[in-house]
Amino acid sequence: MPTKEQVTKSLEAVKIPVVKRSIVGLNLVREVAVADGKVSVLLASTGLTPEANEWVGTEARRVIQKLPGVEEATVEFTDAKANELNQVDHVIAVMSGKGGVGKSLVSGLTAMALRQAGYEVGILDADITGPSIPKMFGLNYSPGGNESGILPAFSGLGIEVMSINLLLPNEEDAVIWRGPLIGHTITQFWEDVLWGKLDYLIVDLPPGTADAPLTVLQTLPISGVIIVFTPQDLTAMIVKKAVNMARKMEKPILGVVENMSYLYVPEIDKKIELFGKSRGEEMSLLAGAPLLGQLPIDPELVKLCDEGNIEQYNGELFRNFKDELIHTLAEGINTK
Amino acid sequence: MPTKEQVTKSLEAVKIPVVKRSIVGLNLVREVAVADGKVSVLLASTGLTPEANEWVGTEARRVIQKLPGVEEATVEFTDAKANELNQVDHVIAVMSGKGGVGKSLVSGLTAMALRQAGYEVGILDADITGPSIPKMFGLNYSPGGNESGILPAFSGLGIEVMSINLLLPNEEDAVIWRGPLIGHTITQFWEDVLWGKLDYLIVDLPPGTADAPLTVLQTLPISGVIIVFTPQDLTAMIVKKAVNMARKMEKPILGVVENMSYLYVPEIDKKIELFGKSRGEEMSLLAGAPLLGQLPIDPELVKLCDEGNIEQYNGELFRNFKDELIHTLAEGINTK
Repeated sequence: MPTKEQVTKSLEAVKIPVVKRSIVGLNLVREVAVADGKVSVLLASTGLTPEANEWVGTEARRVIQKLPGVEEATVEFTDAKANELNQVDHVIAVMSGKGGVGKSLVSGLTAMALRQAGYEVGILDADITGPSIPKMFGLNYSPGGNESGILPAFSGLGIEVMSINLLLPNEEDAVIWRGPLIGHTITQFWEDVLWGKLDYLIVDLPPGTADAPLTVLQTLPISGVIIVFTPQDLTAMIVKKAVNMARKMEKPILGVVENMSYLYVPEIDKKIELFGKSRGEEMSLLAGAPLLGQLPIDPELVKLCDEGNIEQYNGELFRNFKDELIHTLAEGINTK
Repeated sequence: MPTKEQVTKSLEAVKIPVVKRSIVGLNLVREVAVADGKVSVLLASTGLTPEANEWVGTEARRVIQKLPGVEEATVEFTDAKANELNQVDHVIAVMSGKGGVGKSLVSGLTAMALRQAGYEVGILDADITGPSIPKMFGLNYSPGGNESGILPAFSGLGIEVMSINLLLPNEEDAVIWRGPLIGHTITQFWEDVLWGKLDYLIVDLPPGTADAPLTVLQTLPISGVIIVFTPQDLTAMIVKKAVNMARKMEKPILGVVENMSYLYVPEIDKKIELFGKSRGEEMSLLAGAPLLGQLPIDPELVKLCDEGNIEQYNGELFRNFKDELIHTLAEGINTK
């Protein structure tokens, strides 16, 4: 006879079609009972279309019946809101104030770094009018859902993603909405998406200090903030506004990342500081948080992002960033 | 005896302190009467502090009395809202959808190009949470005003500027406002600032397609839109959203500008396409509007912008952009 734990473990083999994450990871397993060779399991049907629902039921029964000592397996379904099932340990917002400094790039690399270190990770793309995440990860549709929840898309590495661009008929459609509707959409992405069990949810914020960042910092249980900047003085001024916003809203700044620090030109073996001298130290002091990395402009990375292949990136700088990030998050979240 | 026209012309010598623009340019001259060696003038006191008001009155009288045949000069003041005095011929919005592509840079260069061609030009910085214009032009305070109007700041070349950063105690203060307040501020910048007589008002929009761009396109009498983009595919996708927004709101696109097209490295006499192959032609076709220019990343220009000296820029590429722009605006505004 299997134990409850063994039954649950076996259900990790049941992966939701398209999403590819298991029903255990998505926290759909509500109850497991084992008695006299009989195993009965209660699953939530959250986010499942009728077809997926049927498939999951059959598959779960099949898996349980293969366990030694099981004579009969019953699988029943119940309804639950995504909100009740989600268990997100840490929510990290990537912000800047300034546009075009690489918030989405840093969000993507942060998620990759954590995922490669073995964590369960999601990205909530809170940039409703200028979403970049799906294209970077080569994702272009939502797996759908039902009235209890929407399923996130799933990247090659296994990062969950939700973005308005996954829901638009055409990725070039403009979302011409005023603030309240944008805030409402972000709240829905938090509450109505079936994130399941996550160690980290990375929230990619749009530029500015208005509706979207405000909604995220006020509504979501933010563990901390990562600030992205470039060396330009003009950028620094606006990024300082974001630092001041995080301070005012009492959200700890976990780290700062300098992007577009320089361009390396191999022909002359020289780093060109396109946007001026690095301000890594200055911004780190200002934010009272460690400098997680100084990323150069890397045309190879630009190309990978444009092709939807960011997850193939493995430059030396990313490896350094990864080590620094994981160390800092582990320290930062526990102490702040 | 001078004619009315001669009196008005003479008043061009009366420049508002700090603003440096004449009371004629700011459209403060309401009535001029000439009879029997007596000249009487009615001026609006819009935007004038009591001290400026007194100074303007004295100066206007002095100038008129110097005209041949004038025995007596009277200057009286009346109240008028900035809104009633403003005469702006063309309002041009610079937009992108995407952040950090150089909207403010293109707004600044467009204003400079028009100013150098002899036009009266203003810039309305509609980026309330991430304003870049004042720093680029080395401006850091508003000349103030009274309850009928606020005076714009005035650049070295004579470009009028209004931006939230001119009104904040500290340029790094965050403006943590939701959409309605941001929309209201932009409307105030349009209605309550004494722009006076302008040939062109350039509106520098923030990223996105939400509140601020929506308010500008719905509320201001936009003659046309200039779209800014960079060669990156990811950027192009979001810029297309802005093109679709302009279309939906039936605003003519006057031209497109590619920024960060390449970096020229003199040591190897090579153009490096940091963000991928140029999409000048593609975006021009898509927008149905001419390509006004392809601007490289120019570290010299970055430096000038950071120092507040954008007006000292006179690179060859700017000269080409200038010719193209003036030609296109003259054609575009008349035919669209």
